[in-house]
Amino acid sequence: MIAGLPGIGSVAWLAVNHLVKQLKAELFAELYSPSFSPKVWLSDDGTVKPAKGDFYFTRSGGVGDFVFFTATEQPYSPEGQYELADRVLEFAEQLSVKRLVTMGGMATDRFTEPRRVYGGSTDPSLMNELEKNGVLKLGGGSITGTNGLLFGLAKPRNVQAICLLAETPGYLSFDAGAARAVLQVIAKINGIQVDMSDLEKQAKENKDAVDRAREPGKGWGKTEARKPVSDRELSYVS
Amino acid sequence: MIAGLPGIGSVAWLAVNHLVKQLKAELFAELYSPSFSPKVWLSDDGTVKPAKGDFYFTRSGGVGDFVFFTATEQPYSPEGQYELADRVLEFAEQLSVKRLVTMGGMATDRFTEPRRVYGGSTDPSLMNELEKNGVLKLGGGSITGTNGLLFGLAKPRNVQAICLLAETPGYLSFDAGAARAVLQVIAKINGIQVDMSDLEKQAKENKDAVDRAREPGKGWGKTEARKPVSDRELSYVS
Amino acid sequence: MIAGLPGIGSVAWLAVNHLVKQLKAELFAELYSPSFSPKVWLSDDGTVKPAKGDFYFTRSGGVGDFVFFTATEQPYSPEGQYELADRVLEFAEQLSVKRLVTMGGMATDRFTEPRRVYGGSTDPSLMNELEKNGVLKLGGGSITGTNGLLFGLAKPRNVQAICLLAETPGYLSFDAGAARAVLQVIAKINGIQVDMSDLEKQAKENKDAVDRAREPGKGWGKTEARKPVSDRELSYVS
Amino acid sequence: MIAGLPGIGSVAWLAVNHLVKQLKAELFAELYSPSFSPKVWLSDDGTVKPAKGDFYFTRSGGVGDFVFFTATEQPYSPEGQYELADRVLEFAEQLSVKRLVTMGGMATDRFTEPRRVYGGSTDPSLMNELEKNGVLKLGGGSITGTNGLLFGLAKPRNVQAICLLAETPGYLSFDAGAARAVLQVIAKINGIQVDMSDLEKQAKENKDAVDRAREPGKGWGKTEARKPVSDRELSYVS
Repeated sequence: MIAGLPGIGSVAWLAVNHLVKQLKAELFAELYSPSFSPKVWLSDDGTVKPAKGDFYFTRSGGVGDFVFFTATEQPYSPEGQYELADRVLEFAEQLSVKRLVTMGGMATDRFTEPRRVYGGSTDPSLMNELEKNGVLKLGGGSITGTNGLLFGLAKPRNVQAICLLAETPGYLSFDAGAARAVLQVIAKINGIQVDMSDLEKQAKENKDAVDRAREPGKGWGKTEARKPVSDRELSYVS
Repeated sequence: MIAGLPGIGSVAWLAVNHLVKQLKAELFAELYSPSFSPKVWLSDDGTVKPAKGDFYFTRSGGVGDFVFFTATEQPYSPEGQYELADRVLEFAEQLSVKRLVTMGGMATDRFTEPRRVYGGSTDPSLMNELEKNGVLKLGGGSITGTNGLLFGLAKPRNVQAICLLAETPGYLSFDAGAARAVLQVIAKINGIQVDMSDLEKQAKENKDAVDRAREPGKGWGKTEARKPVSDRELSYVS
Repeated sequence: MIAGLPGIGSVAWLAVNHLVKQLKAELFAELYSPSFSPKVWLSDDGTVKPAKGDFYFTRSGGVGDFVFFTATEQPYSPEGQYELADRVLEFAEQLSVKRLVTMGGMATDRFTEPRRVYGGSTDPSLMNELEKNGVLKLGGGSITGTNGLLFGLAKPRNVQAICLLAETPGYLSFDAGAARAVLQVIAKINGIQVDMSDLEKQAKENKDAVDRAREPGKGWGKTEARKPVSDRELSYVS
Repeated sequence: MIAGLPGIGSVAWLAVNHLVKQLKAELFAELYSPSFSPKVWLSDDGTVKPAKGDFYFTRSGGVGDFVFFTATEQPYSPEGQYELADRVLEFAEQLSVKRLVTMGGMATDRFTEPRRVYGGSTDPSLMNELEKNGVLKLGGGSITGTNGLLFGLAKPRNVQAICLLAETPGYLSFDAGAARAVLQVIAKINGIQVDMSDLEKQAKENKDAVDRAREPGKGWGKTEARKPVSDRELSYVS
């Protein structure tokens, strides 16, 4: 299972959604939680979209079955984050998931190129495998949020898990470059081919916008890339 | 089922209570929740009224059965709002409700006349039906609160649902004009006749009060219409 | 059942504890809740007293069985207050309690003598009975807190209930005069004799202290009466 | 069972971990809670460590079986603290634990030497036993936090329990001197031998650092002793 919820730089959210699209994975289960924010979203066609988690399945990667999990948001309460992570892991066990990959961003306050990817795992042999694939070891520190809890709570369930954090400047809402960096590791580890052209185009747009913003007299014109629907500005209190 | 809890301009609360009264619907079930505010209200005759949700039933509309749901307040915690919406929808399924109508106000900061009504739905064909009845499409944005959750969480339960938002200036506590605008759409869609004279009288009083307040030297004299008991000022901490 | 938790002026707490002592009621059940404050108290002999609710029983009033409920504190969260009230009422039903009396203080900001007692009830005929015994009708307003919830949530359980609020100045932590006023009504309604001398002595001490404080050059010397152990100042964070 | 969670001066945490190490106790059960903070920690080797409680067992003390309980942190919500304490006590009952020892620090704002140890118990005879071993009686006051709840909630479960609080200045994060003071009492009461040399060395380092800090022109150089992994500074929001 490859799981990633919205978080810093939307790294995990972008990466999982990219994989779902490229590997033509299909939605097969949804997860609702009272600890999501108490609002619903509207599509362009006027249909409603409640906050939820989505499970997708594919075998089109050519190297076995993949389950993906992502969500429209992270639960806003700490208990809600624990409960969501626990439910996803419970479901992963029921699906006999062998290995869980979670991911996220690591704020650097700088625009690094290429983005380095740091990682941790549930056991040392997996960590070795990650380091052989160019991942830097997270030796110490903590990971906050649902992506971290999914990773950490896999351990008492005896589900092998790794967590990959790509460097991201804190100021990008949708850091396609960081998502690409994480996906390159995931593709290598799992032996799958993933077309990155969309993410690369978006990453270049981000970088160009940041460069323009740094030119004298330009200011921060357009540093944010395309936004998903959930980031629109209209909001009604019913 | 036609459901509306107190919210901005009390639009949904006024509309559902008006329908209950006009269609002589009868209370048949009550819902209590630990996420209502921890207080109880007193009637003029000294009897106690705890915070609660009320389900009413009527077939006096002449075009089938109607269930109404309203409550004395919205749960104050987000989790409580989810839980209340979920319980109401669970009950709606048990009652074999075919279609859910929720509603609310959309703050415009201006006094618009007539009030436009915006809407969303659980599927595109319902949206078309709404647009044919003069409802403007909510294409994008989000709806916060229990009225929105009732609407959005109907979708995973496969209950057809629509949500209607009437324009309301933010400063009216009880906007009868917005309630009337929403009810006109509901009456049209459901083929029922609803006497609006009470709401029209109250709407006129509101408008006159606002007009008076705008005259030089008058100030905001009496902009709020009749208040329900729950808005009285006496409050004792026992 | 006669129930009263700590609250404004400790009116209900003082009254129920006085009845328990005077009628020699015996502790027969305890109630613990995770929504009490996360601390434990120590007695003079070094033994520990966790926060809890206590149920007492007596038939020494001579006019039937009485169950009393009080607690060391009110739950600090609104949900906790609902849950405690609901548990107490559930237990009251199991005990076949016929009538519930709850009580509290009503802040007046003044030292009124005698203290007036206001009341509400679950049905109008009970309200009449109260008025015949000198209780003023609470026509409107709201009662906040667990004492109010016990009263209000008795209604959907079809347990007859009344709530009595005695006037209390906000600045007295332990208003024995208000407790006495409430107890006089309870004694009259239930046809029991209660020795009030302890409360009267304490009420006089309170009044004298307030009078002294108002004399020029004296200030607020000793306006608080004897405190229960839970109000001591020593507090350790373990 | 000897139980101690992180708290003021990390007294209980240091003491239990010292006993676990010295008595070669082995981990035999883990406890997870959604009310721990929503983050996971990384070891030096890159493996993940979720927040959790640990139960250890040993009979190497030579005077019977010992179960130890400690945790990486205290639950951050009051309800979570109650729930954790309740679960630990439930498990203690299942393990037929005869006596529970909890502990903590008592802030004195001064560096006292030797540290006095105060105590409370679930019954007066135990308190006598403590006083015979040099423990001062906690006559009044309250103990806040999970260590206090473990102590207090043992009472309704009819588990004999004592709580020991060692004096600690508030400004030491890891007060080995206070941990040693508590352990000396525990060793005496239980008739076990515990090598304190590690704690004594660390206590001396703390004291030297505080003394140096008080010399003119030195300032607060190095008042904190070795920190456990959970106090590192790296923290990533995924």
